[in-house]
Amino acid sequence: MGFVTAVSPAPVSLEEAVHAAARRARLAARVLAQTTTADKDRALHAAADALLAAADTVLTANAEDVATAAADGTPDSVLDRLRLTPDRIDGIASGLRQVAGLPDPVGVTLEGTTLPNGLETRRVSVPLGVVGMIYEARPNVTVDAFGLTLKSGNAVLLRGSSSAARTNAALVDVLRAALVAVGLPADAVQLLSSEDRATVTHLIRARGLVDVVVPRGGAGLISAVVRDATVPTIETGVGNCHVYVDASADLDIAERIVLNAKTRRVSVCNAAETVLIDRAVADAAVPRLVAALEEHDVRVHGDLPGLIPATAADWEQEYLSHDIALAVVDGVDGAIEHIDRYGTGHTEAIVARDVAAARTFTARVDAAAVMVNASTAFTDGEQFGFGAEIGISTQKLHARGPMGLRELTSSKWIVWGDGHVRPA
Amino acid sequence: MGFVTAVSPAPVSLEEAVHAAARRARLAARVLAQTTTADKDRALHAAADALLAAADTVLTANAEDVATAAADGTPDSVLDRLRLTPDRIDGIASGLRQVAGLPDPVGVTLEGTTLPNGLETRRVSVPLGVVGMIYEARPNVTVDAFGLTLKSGNAVLLRGSSSAARTNAALVDVLRAALVAVGLPADAVQLLSSEDRATVTHLIRARGLVDVVVPRGGAGLISAVVRDATVPTIETGVGNCHVYVDASADLDIAERIVLNAKTRRVSVCNAAETVLIDRAVADAAVPRLVAALEEHDVRVHGDLPGLIPATAADWEQEYLSHDIALAVVDGVDGAIEHIDRYGTGHTEAIVARDVAAARTFTARVDAAAVMVNASTAFTDGEQFGFGAEIGISTQKLHARGPMGLRELTSSKWIVWGDGHVRPA
Repeated sequence: MGFVTAVSPAPVSLEEAVHAAARRARLAARVLAQTTTADKDRALHAAADALLAAADTVLTANAEDVATAAADGTPDSVLDRLRLTPDRIDGIASGLRQVAGLPDPVGVTLEGTTLPNGLETRRVSVPLGVVGMIYEARPNVTVDAFGLTLKSGNAVLLRGSSSAARTNAALVDVLRAALVAVGLPADAVQLLSSEDRATVTHLIRARGLVDVVVPRGGAGLISAVVRDATVPTIETGVGNCHVYVDASADLDIAERIVLNAKTRRVSVCNAAETVLIDRAVADAAVPRLVAALEEHDVRVHGDLPGLIPATAADWEQEYLSHDIALAVVDGVDGAIEHIDRYGTGHTEAIVARDVAAARTFTARVDAAAVMVNASTAFTDGEQFGFGAEIGISTQKLHARGPMGLRELTSSKWIVWGDGHVRPA
Repeated sequence: MGFVTAVSPAPVSLEEAVHAAARRARLAARVLAQTTTADKDRALHAAADALLAAADTVLTANAEDVATAAADGTPDSVLDRLRLTPDRIDGIASGLRQVAGLPDPVGVTLEGTTLPNGLETRRVSVPLGVVGMIYEARPNVTVDAFGLTLKSGNAVLLRGSSSAARTNAALVDVLRAALVAVGLPADAVQLLSSEDRATVTHLIRARGLVDVVVPRGGAGLISAVVRDATVPTIETGVGNCHVYVDASADLDIAERIVLNAKTRRVSVCNAAETVLIDRAVADAAVPRLVAALEEHDVRVHGDLPGLIPATAADWEQEYLSHDIALAVVDGVDGAIEHIDRYGTGHTEAIVARDVAAARTFTARVDAAAVMVNASTAFTDGEQFGFGAEIGISTQKLHARGPMGLRELTSSKWIVWGDGHVRPA
């Protein structure tokens, strides 16, 4: 196959290997920036076809990864995220076709005017260039990231986890061959070695060669990337999300939303980790919500009698498990104060019938998404109608909330004149 | 007045002092985020009034800064940037009034929809929060940054240069008193000590307390900030700008644009630093442009006979002086190749009558602004009609090109439902 060794284990240093991959990516990105929508979509369909055709090879590689991970004592929940099946490969391939069906985010005139002096200005969307993705176990991210970056005219450097190394190599092999088959540069997608942690360091410090790095994974990964990067980064995903039940809440709705936000999938960043209950309704709401949660095998941590005693860590942590913290607060002001202190700026929800409480909450809570009478689980690119998602930004710069194709673009001002010079 | 000691020289460490200032800024930012447009505009006019009323105090402080700098042997061009006059103070004050007249960038619904399940989503512009500004000599930046950040609902931490310390302290004193007078928190603007370089380090690493840092100044300052920051930064201003004269160019226009781009003001980031001439027209264009430049006291560096011999550094550097590099290239492809290699992604211009050359140049040059038959000097917030400018971003994330009020905002998704939960 020969496509997979994006970074050769040659005599060069690891840093030089990463830089060389980034330089190849830049050349590929230059081609992709000028590739038509039709050609990019053709490449996405070719990649989907190739993926289905190579399903056996990919599944074999994946089975080896899963077996190694299982032998290493990896927990079942992680094994499940690592595992591919024929159905999952079908899903990944149809994801590529979905991206092909989305509008091209590049070349859109975002604004523009004719200035008083006759100069015509236009701001046009352009690709970012070279995107670095650093992510953990799930191999579907490999293909999703490829699809989204290709459609948005970017080259991507992938740094997955070592537990998925064989699977990722097999997938990238297929994707690179598909690009070559349609006349696009294979180096639009490259897999960096996951053997050495230093690959990450070199990638996030390849300033001038890499335009943006998106870390996707646990809090530890993300904070390490953000701390050490010199390349601009987009922080994603850590969600210590709260559901606040106001005194004015319909308790049926509150129960439904708390249960959905906590138990729909406990390992995702938009899952609720703390429920806040208005003191004015605590007598009725606390026993009811605690009972409902416990009935769904959720352990409730808090300072109230009958709960698992809470420590400071309970308010701060993203459990990602069947645990939730519960606190009684003084109305919407108390809820906002708690969220200001412990929230991670991902998603915060209020359950309320009172318009004033809901408006205060939406205006003052500082988060990527604020929900009124809706589950935190809705913060998601597909749910928001983006068709696909590269991650959920919890920072304020560039993108905030679910990131789709548009968030993988920058812009450029193009100004036409006829000999205009600027007066002193 | 007692407003100026934003960072007290108390027994706490410098880091703690910076963090304490940032915490006060966060509290102020929370107030500003909820302040109406009318109240923010009132504060801007109050600040303008206060500045005019305190002009003598500010001028006295400035005279001391200028005298100290002059005694230290500071060059005249830098002294000129440091110096305030009654006219300049008038200009700064009217700048604040202009910002008051601009539309409020906060609270704008940027997009939104009703999802198939009935959830109503809206993405609304919100302030970034706490903005750190790190800048060099010019004291007008102190007031401009205050005006733009206040209007966009942000608190600002200012870290100016020590050579302007007295002037900046006097200005910030006036601004803080003006805020208090209209009932807004003084801590919306704070001046950090410029005595110790470590203030910068603590500011750019105050992750979680500061939302964005904008360095404005020379290449050394900017690259140091970008290298060491853990807070998201917006890189501004370094401009190794090129003017490419295509074979199809009207040479009258070419001469006019090259002269304007180079000599209008040599110390600004949008000044031209290299002129590239199409080989096909070199015989006619080179002697003419060199003669015109030399007539305007510009030293021309290059590999051609009669020019000051160029070294590798000439192609890379931002002269910011009456110097320009000149190279002959092979058509538009050669120009793009040269710019890809040496450009800093600020502003690149082509002079051409040929549509195909102009379209190739605008499509393929990777820069914040690309000019066709117009001077590079037009890359400027006021020229672009923004009314004011916080800097010119040369990075691709968040903002690219001149940054006005809008670029000082983020956004937040607000989603209204009536008990919506997400299916498994």
